[in-house]
Amino acid sequence: MSATLRELADEFSCRLYGDPDRIVTRVGTLSGAGPDAVSFLANPLYRAHLASTRAGAVILAERDRDGCPTACLVHERPYATYARIAAHLHPAVASAAGVHPSAVIAASARLAPSAEIGANAVIGAGSEVGDAAVVGPGCVLGANVSVGAATRLVARVTLLDGVRIGARGIVHAGAVIGADGFGFAPEGGQWVKIPQVGSVVIGDDVEIGANTTIDRGTIEDTVIEDGVKLDNLVQIAHNVRVGAHTVMAGTAAIAGSTKIGKRCMIAGGAAVINSIVVCDDVTLTVRAVVTKDIDKPGVYSGLFPAEEAAKWRRDVARFRRLEELAARVTAAEQRLAELSKTKKDE
Amino acid sequence: MSATLRELADEFSCRLYGDPDRIVTRVGTLSGAGPDAVSFLANPLYRAHLASTRAGAVILAERDRDGCPTACLVHERPYATYARIAAHLHPAVASAAGVHPSAVIAASARLAPSAEIGANAVIGAGSEVGDAAVVGPGCVLGANVSVGAATRLVARVTLLDGVRIGARGIVHAGAVIGADGFGFAPEGGQWVKIPQVGSVVIGDDVEIGANTTIDRGTIEDTVIEDGVKLDNLVQIAHNVRVGAHTVMAGTAAIAGSTKIGKRCMIAGGAAVINSIVVCDDVTLTVRAVVTKDIDKPGVYSGLFPAEEAAKWRRDVARFRRLEELAARVTAAEQRLAELSKTKKDE
Amino acid sequence: MSATLRELADEFSCRLYGDPDRIVTRVGTLSGAGPDAVSFLANPLYRAHLASTRAGAVILAERDRDGCPTACLVHERPYATYARIAAHLHPAVASAAGVHPSAVIAASARLAPSAEIGANAVIGAGSEVGDAAVVGPGCVLGANVSVGAATRLVARVTLLDGVRIGARGIVHAGAVIGADGFGFAPEGGQWVKIPQVGSVVIGDDVEIGANTTIDRGTIEDTVIEDGVKLDNLVQIAHNVRVGAHTVMAGTAAIAGSTKIGKRCMIAGGAAVINSIVVCDDVTLTVRAVVTKDIDKPGVYSGLFPAEEAAKWRRDVARFRRLEELAARVTAAEQRLAELSKTKKDE
Repeated sequence: MSATLRELADEFSCRLYGDPDRIVTRVGTLSGAGPDAVSFLANPLYRAHLASTRAGAVILAERDRDGCPTACLVHERPYATYARIAAHLHPAVASAAGVHPSAVIAASARLAPSAEIGANAVIGAGSEVGDAAVVGPGCVLGANVSVGAATRLVARVTLLDGVRIGARGIVHAGAVIGADGFGFAPEGGQWVKIPQVGSVVIGDDVEIGANTTIDRGTIEDTVIEDGVKLDNLVQIAHNVRVGAHTVMAGTAAIAGSTKIGKRCMIAGGAAVINSIVVCDDVTLTVRAVVTKDIDKPGVYSGLFPAEEAAKWRRDVARFRRLEELAARVTAAEQRLAELSKTKKDE
Repeated sequence: MSATLRELADEFSCRLYGDPDRIVTRVGTLSGAGPDAVSFLANPLYRAHLASTRAGAVILAERDRDGCPTACLVHERPYATYARIAAHLHPAVASAAGVHPSAVIAASARLAPSAEIGANAVIGAGSEVGDAAVVGPGCVLGANVSVGAATRLVARVTLLDGVRIGARGIVHAGAVIGADGFGFAPEGGQWVKIPQVGSVVIGDDVEIGANTTIDRGTIEDTVIEDGVKLDNLVQIAHNVRVGAHTVMAGTAAIAGSTKIGKRCMIAGGAAVINSIVVCDDVTLTVRAVVTKDIDKPGVYSGLFPAEEAAKWRRDVARFRRLEELAARVTAAEQRLAELSKTKKDE
Repeated sequence: MSATLRELADEFSCRLYGDPDRIVTRVGTLSGAGPDAVSFLANPLYRAHLASTRAGAVILAERDRDGCPTACLVHERPYATYARIAAHLHPAVASAAGVHPSAVIAASARLAPSAEIGANAVIGAGSEVGDAAVVGPGCVLGANVSVGAATRLVARVTLLDGVRIGARGIVHAGAVIGADGFGFAPEGGQWVKIPQVGSVVIGDDVEIGANTTIDRGTIEDTVIEDGVKLDNLVQIAHNVRVGAHTVMAGTAAIAGSTKIGKRCMIAGGAAVINSIVVCDDVTLTVRAVVTKDIDKPGVYSGLFPAEEAAKWRRDVARFRRLEELAARVTAAEQRLAELSKTKKDE
């Protein structure tokens, strides 16, 4: 896709400084872009690359305009604007309405005529696929699954019985949604399986990463609210609720029956144990482990378990100086012994 | 499925208090159940919900009966009894004997007439599938695989060459059993692959979670004994042995050639490094890391690596008070300096 | 496959001590091998098993020959030599040229005549598969994917659009390569998706574990250099570069835009956060977390984050003796109080 800078400025509400007729066809990094590419500056870490960029244009905030050697598309939210311009220049492959002849579709499934069903996909009884939705190659949908309009199951996604996902979602390859939750009753040194009779309900505009797993509820449903974004290899156990617009990075894990608030940011490898409530607007840093309710928005860190990030940083700094502290105690002990000796000698 | 309370009490050996002719059709939580649902009380955390429940009946222990406003099904093991009653009211979908026409079955494979082979499943040469077993849609079985009677491979499960799983197992979607173990010999700054010529042998009544991986042995087999339950995204490396009735929660990881005893409980994200022996009846708490043999049953915690849980809790409490300890050392140092000065001044 | 010891010694440049006509047909462990098996001694941990081995022959270094009760194949690198002899006795199944009739191949895909395409595989437009390469059952290749000569995608592997992998690679079941990186711009409490327009480029001789995920780049490509070995359930985020001959054990995770050097060894569960540079020849121990650049080869450990391993071990030892240190401070405080009192009393 190509566009002039004037077209981009008009379409995406930017102020343009530079040649309105310059044509760009792609996006690029500040250091890698050529004259046919539009780049962006959002993270101050990359400001050093601005002066030497060869990009056709740079999307940036007003405050960074002076340092830009090429055309500027100025917007107060340059990162989100970059996202939109990138999607414009690199449009996702449109769905191709129709059912591949190798797909296996239950007679009672209801597929929108505009939906695309890929090669070797399997769709169970009573399931429905909405307008312009895509069930990619090798996906398996159980019975009574519902896929909302314009949602894309990329490839080899599994949605088990009764799973419902809303509109405009993306589920990446290998994700498994609706497997049995992990529930067993102990009895005589063995385990009796607890039937998992709930399912999983997912809102609109949710993105789910590759090989991520979201288990069905024990009795009621596991719930992922609107706008949630989960990275790869994330584990969401049974009965969890994840609040709207919360994001979780790779290998994060949420144990059973825990509720995560809205707009939380869960870093890579962070974990929350079972039956916890985390309030809205909580950030967990990398590998944080939460074992108690969090009822105050803020940043939490640490492994013993997580505490407020500033406290954790102080504790860790002390940990790193334990050797020095022990040496000071030894010195004090020796001084005390000398003082006592002097005392006795007197 | 529906049942009267009398039928449930008779079938599952409960003492019934309340209307024997009341009909229930499903299970529900204490707070969510209506009059057509049977609920249960097993975890004291939920006792507060008992007084206000609207359930048709509650499965509970004798000691909780007084607080119950509705019919009671009394059993000394209410959780296991709930599991059985839930399975009775919500029976698993029965297997449908037969091979889906889209499945690809090697001529030398032996399938029980009562087995169900799903759409687009692939079964390799010399493999066998037992009575009433299910190979779900999109599963891939290599050569000489054996699936025991009544075992269910839910969907998109991979069992590589020579993998054997016993009876009444459940393997959830995306699990990969029998991939090559991770073994390489260093040579001149590069790596030479060690052929992985063992396979994986899995006992009866084993449940394996979604996207979990169990690698084949290097020379001998990786072994998962009877009754083991593994959650999602668990990693079991080559040559590991997991003892009977051990459970592992999500994202736990066991490195190569390690032996885990019977009836262990491995919490989420816990890890055991390679060539370790963990004895029977060991519990590892969340994210514990084990780097030395454990030869005494008990609860182990911690990351540096794991130690007995009580010791770990004391160490962590000290860690959290390091700032206070450092302040005390500083105060002692100042007091010492004053004492020394007084001394000198005398 | 069977061979005489003379044949093995000649083919793999070993010095043979023992009967050159003895025939072996398989490999075995020192303790498990019978007279038809060849075993090896590379790890001193297993030296105790040598005296009682019943193996037909043992591959070992000259220094261990005296303790060997059976024929010896002596080589200065016994582990790598074992790897080669094991591959000779247990050859991988050769690829069977041809396309399974159930595979779905785009008309514009280019498949080498010697390539093997398995049952229910799906190959998209413009993709190419090299000589003697294997696309196993249930694999899904998007558009414009390239698979090098003699590379084996074992089963149910997904390579999304534009992914390129070199020669002689192995990708285990369930791996997903080229899913969208995890990139979103915040805007008004919601998230705008950043299109991920790069892809993934993988060198020669790379092995990738079961259910591992490697995301496509945001703008440029994610790169895995020659000879890299990744274990199961590893997460490689967008824009990462992994240097040649680096190995990563199970559940390791590398966050976005991080560069890992050549010949690094990343232990199980270790993690490196985003936008970090780790130099060549770095070892990270189990569960280490790296949050700062590492520019000096060596061994790094720890969780707060990682530091040089020796420093970490000292800090942890101090942590474990915190209780003792606190007791010493209390004793010093009491002694000080006594001294002060004496002072005052004088």
